[in-house]
Amino acid sequence: PAGRKVLIVYAHQEPKSLNGSLKRVAVEELSKQGCSVTVSDLYAMQFEPRATRNDIVGCLHNSEEFDYGVETWEAYKRGALSNDLIEEQKKVQEADLLIFQFPLYWFSMPAIMKGWMDRVLVQGFAHEFPNCYDSGLLKNKLALFSFTTGGSREMYAKGGISGDIRYLLWPMQHGIMHFCGVKVLAPHICFAPEYVSEEKRKEMLVAWAQRLKTLWKEEPINCSPEWYFK
Amino acid sequence: PAGRKVLIVYAHQEPKSLNGSLKRVAVEELSKQGCSVTVSDLYAMQFEPRATRNDIVGCLHNSEEFDYGVETWEAYKRGALSNDLIEEQKKVQEADLLIFQFPLYWFSMPAIMKGWMDRVLVQGFAHEFPNCYDSGLLKNKLALFSFTTGGSREMYAKGGISGDIRYLLWPMQHGIMHFCGVKVLAPHICFAPEYVSEEKRKEMLVAWAQRLKTLWKEEPINCSPEWYFK
Repeated sequence: PAGRKVLIVYAHQEPKSLNGSLKRVAVEELSKQGCSVTVSDLYAMQFEPRATRNDIVGCLHNSEEFDYGVETWEAYKRGALSNDLIEEQKKVQEADLLIFQFPLYWFSMPAIMKGWMDRVLVQGFAHEFPNCYDSGLLKNKLALFSFTTGGSREMYAKGGISGDIRYLLWPMQHGIMHFCGVKVLAPHICFAPEYVSEEKRKEMLVAWAQRLKTLWKEEPINCSPEWYFK
Repeated sequence: PAGRKVLIVYAHQEPKSLNGSLKRVAVEELSKQGCSVTVSDLYAMQFEPRATRNDIVGCLHNSEEFDYGVETWEAYKRGALSNDLIEEQKKVQEADLLIFQFPLYWFSMPAIMKGWMDRVLVQGFAHEFPNCYDSGLLKNKLALFSFTTGGSREMYAKGGISGDIRYLLWPMQHGIMHFCGVKVLAPHICFAPEYVSEEKRKEMLVAWAQRLKTLWKEEPINCSPEWYFK
């Protein structure tokens, strides 16, 4: 894996959190393998989550009626997206692997990370009909969702009160990553770290480091309804 | 329905958009019925989607290691949440029905609306273990997700390339609203309005107004895996 490029998109406010530690472990282990690792630390960057007219520099394609999807597509083509988006797109373009590290908020990613998806994965850059799903423009890249939960493994079991954890992965893994052509590795989930001992939390970090050692040998999941809802 | 209170949480940048029209239709029709309607126009409010330390006024419960969930829970109890959150919580508290009006972004709501969920539905206010799901603190309220899609009805059919549209409703309807005890009415979906005629778009507005006329007679869906994944 030496020479491979990894982008970690990280959304936690507190460096001392388990998410902060999971991010550090990934940087260390992947760097040790000779990978080149970049981190987008969204809260530290005060990353803007709102999709607005400010994302387009200069005149609009249609200033009568603002359509965010159309305007960012047009702006992408003429190199007129705002600088923060161009920076993130460069990082994505160079990466072989995207790791998303976050605490699960409301069965999904925190708004600051959803804003990264909404704003960075612009039409023309990440997809352009009919180039979506298996022919999405980011094909040949891998993605991995690594997150912590509030609820326990039992709550997120099939038949549990919160349903199979895979149900909530559908919009993120299939709806976003697969749509852009990115192949998805199995998620890495730390269940309810707030309710376990310090020792257990350390084991979670060790397990993550361990998985990363052989990550490049993993096969992507079959990102179709069977995987999620079987 | 006279006297019923409705909060419309609305996320579109452009008043002239179909989402803008759907919002106006709802305000008009529900007001005509004698309901009292409030709108949170998130982009116009420049609503903050990021969950940060700024949401807590004054000292933190634990300034050594910032935990957003714990801090906002504690701040709620001592009345120390930021003013924008207190305002939104008041609107939610008073409402009998919450309508979420938005364009689908990446199989979910736009980040600005996800931020509303992340920040407003604080523990202690909307849920407090074991008061979640059927005993969530917002029980006796109704919610309805009303949105437009980019993809067509065929793409979002079972077996279609984007999978049954119900798959992506699980995190929003079950993971957020049901978790807080809110009963969920059937979603209202306008498929691919950008690809239909002006006349068809007008029919979409009429259909929405029509549905709202008998909305208060509707039974909530059975918000369990069977509804979503059967």
